[in-house]
Amino acid sequence: MVRLWLALRRARGWGALAGLRARPDKFGGVSVDLAELRRPLRLERAAFGRWLRGKCRAGAPGAAGRADAVARWREEGRVAIWLRIPILQSRFVAAAASQGFAFHHAEQGSSTLTLWLGEGPSRLPGYATHQLGVAGAVLDENTGKVLVIQDRNKTLNAWKFPGGLSNPGEDIGDTAVREVFEETGIKSEFKSILSIRQQHRHPGAFGKSDMYIICRLEPSSFNISFCQQECLRCEWMDLDELARTKHATPITSNVAKLLLYGYREGFDKIDITMREFPAVYTGLFYKLYHRELPESYRNFT
Amino acid sequence: MVRLWLALRRARGWGALAGLRARPDKFGGVSVDLAELRRPLRLERAAFGRWLRGKCRAGAPGAAGRADAVARWREEGRVAIWLRIPILQSRFVAAAASQGFAFHHAEQGSSTLTLWLGEGPSRLPGYATHQLGVAGAVLDENTGKVLVIQDRNKTLNAWKFPGGLSNPGEDIGDTAVREVFEETGIKSEFKSILSIRQQHRHPGAFGKSDMYIICRLEPSSFNISFCQQECLRCEWMDLDELARTKHATPITSNVAKLLLYGYREGFDKIDITMREFPAVYTGLFYKLYHRELPESYRNFT
Repeated sequence: MVRLWLALRRARGWGALAGLRARPDKFGGVSVDLAELRRPLRLERAAFGRWLRGKCRAGAPGAAGRADAVARWREEGRVAIWLRIPILQSRFVAAAASQGFAFHHAEQGSSTLTLWLGEGPSRLPGYATHQLGVAGAVLDENTGKVLVIQDRNKTLNAWKFPGGLSNPGEDIGDTAVREVFEETGIKSEFKSILSIRQQHRHPGAFGKSDMYIICRLEPSSFNISFCQQECLRCEWMDLDELARTKHATPITSNVAKLLLYGYREGFDKIDITMREFPAVYTGLFYKLYHRELPESYRNFT
Repeated sequence: MVRLWLALRRARGWGALAGLRARPDKFGGVSVDLAELRRPLRLERAAFGRWLRGKCRAGAPGAAGRADAVARWREEGRVAIWLRIPILQSRFVAAAASQGFAFHHAEQGSSTLTLWLGEGPSRLPGYATHQLGVAGAVLDENTGKVLVIQDRNKTLNAWKFPGGLSNPGEDIGDTAVREVFEETGIKSEFKSILSIRQQHRHPGAFGKSDMYIICRLEPSSFNISFCQQECLRCEWMDLDELARTKHATPITSNVAKLLLYGYREGFDKIDITMREFPAVYTGLFYKLYHRELPESYRNFT
């Protein structure tokens, strides 16, 4: 009876692990993806815990489902284990946590846990540390007026440039142009980066860091139709006045002065310009932002 | 017997939810933190699922543990639910996922799930989208030589500037100085930002975006003692030669030309300089990077 029970238990437990592969990576770690379980419902939480703990004996050779998991990887000199768990199989998360695993990250339908086996503190790369906010300073060169808004949800009604968080995969200039249009109805074109700010432990970024970039944009439409949900006010303001007013956030005030300097003495004095380069991986391009480089130096050989 | 069983079940289920608070936020959402469960082990996974689904009837008024959870919040006009779950209570994750919740993020000992209840697509802010890498171009002005390395783990042995990923909470210049020291043994001081690059769907960033900043650093020590684990080679190379060689990554080559331009014609031609400003929140400072702004404009009133 006990033997039958054990056999059943094994069938419902480690047998379900048979399809699972442990994939070594080039940094000395190993990855296991529970999305590869053929019959996840047949794997009991406790059986998974025992498999990790390395106290079971069954399993197919070569499969991750063999006998001793963590202990065996440690003996093999693996420095880390990466464990990806589909959200609906999250019952295995606590079992892994009991063995020392912790969340590395999670997104939508799955989480990834890690366990460092190497010497000293973990040298595993962390997950994304920054959110990116981008604002657009849209200057109408014909009138010397710049597009400014006041946020609806802020107690302090200070003038600022329209902007918002970058979407995943979105380029800096595209975020600026999109956010300006969504908030004010003004169409514009990216010209340059004006300033970069970094802030840490940002409450609006779930304690992560915030990178905030202000771009110089050139308007191609002029009739304001601003988003009532986000903005309290929106107008074309004299750049002089924005550079002078106390009713602006410090960063807005500072960038207004910078923009005024460029407007009066040439944008080449303030711009951080963009160039596109082919990436090392075929077919991709990347944008590099820096000070203007004379042709003679670009072609230096 | 059935009634006793039901009563026991209720005691082990919804009773355990009594201590739980639902905290409204200023954006119209509501947050529940399962770390506040007084007796998490007494809450069954299925009971939690039923509570979310809103098919139970018991519960204390005012507590999140009252009768109808999701449906009730929806009726109240809440636009979103944030659910924080400690890693050891991850058995509740799948129950939430069955009700439409998905991971927003997870880190170390807990995960956060969200469910959008508002109209249209979710307007909830995403989690961090970028990792930040920072490299240092350390130029010895007396010799015209710049510090370069070759990575050990890359197949292509091209010269590049030493650098690495920013730690959480670390300022740009501090990352550059730390990484240069760790990789080469050279001590240096931050002078300016030279370039910014953004790349998306980065394999080394778990599919997130990568922001890569190169800083200009001034050396304060000159004897190389490089990290054998990370670097294959490390040397002081003539800046002319680095700007000219084909054995460098495209971005290194381009920044070398920029640095050469600055070295020959003045760093004021290439620098993106840093200024510190008081943040809106008392006691904090932030660093703003932009082109040099003349005193007359800084004090513009």
